[in-house]
Amino acid sequence: MTSAAPVSVTLLNSLRQILGPQGLLLGAAVHERLEGWRSKQPCRAAAIARPDTVQQLSQALALCNASAQAVVVNGGLTGLADGAIAGPDEVILSTERLSRIIALDNANRSITVQAGVPLQRVQEAAADSGLLFALDLGARGSCTIGGNIATNAGGYRVLRYGMTRELVLGLEVVLADGTLLSSMNRMLKNNAGYDLKQLFIGTEGTLGVVTAAVLRLREAPRSTQTALLACGDFQQVLRLLRQLDRDTGGTLSSFEVLWNDFYRLVTTPPAANKPLLAQQHPFYVIAECLGSDAARDDERFAAVLASLATENLIVDAVVAAASAQRAGIWALREGMRGTLQPGRFVSFDVSLALSDMESYVAEVYARVARDLPGWRCLTVGHLGDGNLHFIVTGGDAAALHHEVERCVYEPLRARGGSISGEHGIGTEKRAWLEVSRNAGEIALMRRLKQLLDPQNILNRGRVLPG
Amino acid sequence: MTSAAPVSVTLLNSLRQILGPQGLLLGAAVHERLEGWRSKQPCRAAAIARPDTVQQLSQALALCNASAQAVVVNGGLTGLADGAIAGPDEVILSTERLSRIIALDNANRSITVQAGVPLQRVQEAAADSGLLFALDLGARGSCTIGGNIATNAGGYRVLRYGMTRELVLGLEVVLADGTLLSSMNRMLKNNAGYDLKQLFIGTEGTLGVVTAAVLRLREAPRSTQTALLACGDFQQVLRLLRQLDRDTGGTLSSFEVLWNDFYRLVTTPPAANKPLLAQQHPFYVIAECLGSDAARDDERFAAVLASLATENLIVDAVVAAASAQRAGIWALREGMRGTLQPGRFVSFDVSLALSDMESYVAEVYARVARDLPGWRCLTVGHLGDGNLHFIVTGGDAAALHHEVERCVYEPLRARGGSISGEHGIGTEKRAWLEVSRNAGEIALMRRLKQLLDPQNILNRGRVLPG
Repeated sequence: MTSAAPVSVTLLNSLRQILGPQGLLLGAAVHERLEGWRSKQPCRAAAIARPDTVQQLSQALALCNASAQAVVVNGGLTGLADGAIAGPDEVILSTERLSRIIALDNANRSITVQAGVPLQRVQEAAADSGLLFALDLGARGSCTIGGNIATNAGGYRVLRYGMTRELVLGLEVVLADGTLLSSMNRMLKNNAGYDLKQLFIGTEGTLGVVTAAVLRLREAPRSTQTALLACGDFQQVLRLLRQLDRDTGGTLSSFEVLWNDFYRLVTTPPAANKPLLAQQHPFYVIAECLGSDAARDDERFAAVLASLATENLIVDAVVAAASAQRAGIWALREGMRGTLQPGRFVSFDVSLALSDMESYVAEVYARVARDLPGWRCLTVGHLGDGNLHFIVTGGDAAALHHEVERCVYEPLRARGGSISGEHGIGTEKRAWLEVSRNAGEIALMRRLKQLLDPQNILNRGRVLPG
Repeated sequence: MTSAAPVSVTLLNSLRQILGPQGLLLGAAVHERLEGWRSKQPCRAAAIARPDTVQQLSQALALCNASAQAVVVNGGLTGLADGAIAGPDEVILSTERLSRIIALDNANRSITVQAGVPLQRVQEAAADSGLLFALDLGARGSCTIGGNIATNAGGYRVLRYGMTRELVLGLEVVLADGTLLSSMNRMLKNNAGYDLKQLFIGTEGTLGVVTAAVLRLREAPRSTQTALLACGDFQQVLRLLRQLDRDTGGTLSSFEVLWNDFYRLVTTPPAANKPLLAQQHPFYVIAECLGSDAARDDERFAAVLASLATENLIVDAVVAAASAQRAGIWALREGMRGTLQPGRFVSFDVSLALSDMESYVAEVYARVARDLPGWRCLTVGHLGDGNLHFIVTGGDAAALHHEVERCVYEPLRARGGSISGEHGIGTEKRAWLEVSRNAGEIALMRRLKQLLDPQNILNRGRVLPG
C-alpha cells in the first residue's frame, strides 16, 4: 500500500449523497467492526460504503475513481490471504446489502443471485428445488458468492464439480470507472466472442467488482458413501485415487488425505476426536461418493472397497453406515481447531502435480527439520485436486514467518507448483508470486490491471507484488 | 478484411530465412491446398508459414508484427465459422509441424501436447493409459488441439465434462509481437494470480497463437449405456433430462434431441438409416451414460428407463444391447449427410436457456413459415447443453442467407440467447454478434484486442464486427 493520505471529506460527503445515511458508515460505526475473520483487530478503513443497488455501487465507484481513491471490496471477510483488510487510507466497498436471490430456473438448472448472498443461502435455495450448488467449504455460512467468485473458491468437491470458475455461467461486474458490465449468460455453452467473465473470476477484485452472477446447478445427489481408508505408502495413495475414481463411475466427489502427523494430532487430546482407525498408518484417505440410489450405490461402494483391499491398495478401512458416522469421519478433517497454540503455527495452501507430490513433501519436511529446529509439519489436503494444506508449527509464527514460508515455497519452484491452490494471493503471498508465475505472466497480469484499472483503485496492492 | 495490399517480398524472404525452405510455402504450393473444409476453393493466401518450433513461430510472428502483416492461424481447417480462411493479403501461420505429444503423466492424469496434434491422437494416447480425453466431436481425425482450444470446442459430452475450456490446465501462447507466454500449469487448482490462459481459450486466435497445452485426463469409462427414447412433448423432454440425470448418478454424458422433422429426414431415403422407433413422435432423445461396471450399470439403466416409462416421461424406447446397435443410434444423429442438396440449406449453432427453448423454436418456425415461403426447419442438438443446431432448407442458400439468419437470430435477442453455442464467430457471424453481446461487452472485447494485438495482425476481422 502507498502512504496513508487521508480520505477527502468532499469525497465522503459525495458518497453519502449517493448512498444515503444507511449506505455510508464512518467513525465508530466502522471501528466497531473487525477488519477480518482471522484478525481480531478493529476495522481501520476510512469509511464503509454499503450500496443497496448496483447503480449506487457504480456511481460510488465512479466517484472514487475520479479522485483516485483506493477501494477495498468486502464480501464475507472469510478470505485467507488478507486481501480484504483495509487500511486507514482506504474506503471499503461492501456487498452486504446486495444480498437478493433474483431467480431460480428449474428447467435450466441455474440460479441468479446478487454478490452479497452467502454461499449457504445459495446451497439451500438449490436444495429446495432438488438441485445442488456444488461449491462447498467450511465458511459456507459467512462467505459470499461474490467473494467465492472473486477468489475462485475451491473446497471439498473440486475433483468432481470443478472450482467456482466452472460453476459460473454469467456475471455482472462494475469496472473501476463505474461502468456496469452485464454479461449474465445463462447457458452452458456460449462461444459468441470473448468470454469476458473469465477476467473477473479469481482476480480477487482487482479488475472489477462482481455484483451478481448466474450459477450452474446440478441434480442433487440422493445417496452418499463415505469411508476412511488407510494406506501404507504414497504410491498406494495415488493408485487408490485412480482405481477408486475409475470404479465408482463418476461419483467420486472428495478424496482428502491426512498424513500420519495430522491424523495423530486430530485424534489425540486435546483434539475432540478419537481415532477411527489405529494411529500407525502413514496415510489416511477420506473418500466420498455422491450418487443417485442408496441401495445400489452402497452395494457397489462396498464391492469396490473389497476389491481395493484384495489388491492391497488399502490396509484398513471404516465405512460410514449412517450420517452420524459420516460426520465423525469428516470431523477428523476439520479437527485441528483448538489443538495448536495461537501464534505458534503457519498454514499453507499449495498445489502441485500429483506425480511430484511425494518428493515435494519430503523436501519440505527436510527443510523444516534443517532450517527450523523444533518445528514440525502437519499435512492434510484435497489430494484428489493436487492441493495440500501444510501446517508448520513449533515457534513464534510472527517472528519466523518468512523462514517458514521459504521452506514450503522454495521447493515448488523446480516442480512448477503453486503457492496458492485455492485461497488466492491477497497481500499475504504477493511477495512469493514469482515462485509460481514467470516474469512474462506477471507482466501480462500488470498490463491487464493497467487496462482495466488505470488509477489502480481496486484492491490496490493485492495480488501483484509492488 | 481491409484492402488487399500485396505482401512484401522482403518480409517473405525474411520469413524464409527464419523458417527454412520447408517452412514457407509460396505460389503453387499454397494454391494446391484447399482454403477450408467446407469450401472447395483453392487457398488464396500469400504464403503459408509452417514453423517447426515455437521459437520459429515466435520469430515469424515478431517479423509480421513489425510489418503490420495480417496473419491467419490455421489448425485442422475444420472450423465452421470461416475464421481460418485467408485472403490474398494474408499470411497463414500453420501449426501443422507442431504436432508432438510431449508427455503423458499417468499419476497426475494430464497430457502435454503441441497445438498441431489432432484431437484423435490425444484421445488415443490417453486411452493407451486407461484414461479419457473427454472432448469428442465429428472432426476428431482432422481438427487439432490448438484449434479446439482457440474455439473452445464443445461436442458430445459437454453436459458431463464441460467445454474445452474446462479440459485445459495449462497453455503456451505466442502473442502478436512474438512474445512467448508459457503458462503450462499442470494442476486442477492454481489461484496464484490471474489465470491468463482464459484470455486465449475461445478467442479464436485473435489475442495470441496457442502453441502447446497441458490437458486434463479422466479415468476411461468401462461401460456405456445408450438409448433412443421418444417423447410426446417438449415439457416431457425437459423433465426427462432432469430425471435421467438425477437417477443415473453422475454418468449421463450425452443428451441429444432430434425433433420430428430431423428424425424423419434421417430415417427416410435417401438417408442411409432406417427408423429405430416409429416416425410419429414429436421428439427423439439419444441418451448415453458412461460408467464403470457394465453389469451393474446396465441393470440400473434398465431400471431407470422402466421408471421413466411408468411415469410417462417417455412414450417409446430402444436400448442398445451391443456396440453395433449403439453405432446405429448415433448414426441417426450424424445421418443428415447426403440428404440435402448442396447450396440449398443453412446450418446454425445457437444456444439458449432450456426454459426459453420451446417458445424460441416455435418462433423460429413461425418466422421461417412467414418470411421464407417454401423453406422449412430441421432441428437437432446437444439439448442437455442448451445448444441447438438448426438446418433451414428450401431455396438458394447464398441468395437468402441473410434472411434465413434473421429468422434464426432475431428471436434470440429477447431471450438472451447465443448465436454460437460452440462453433464460434469467425467471419461468418461477426455481423450478428450484437444479438448476443451488448455494447459494453463488445467494447471491452475491443479493448482487450487493442491491448494484446495493437497492430491488429492476428486473425484480423474475425470475431469482432468491423
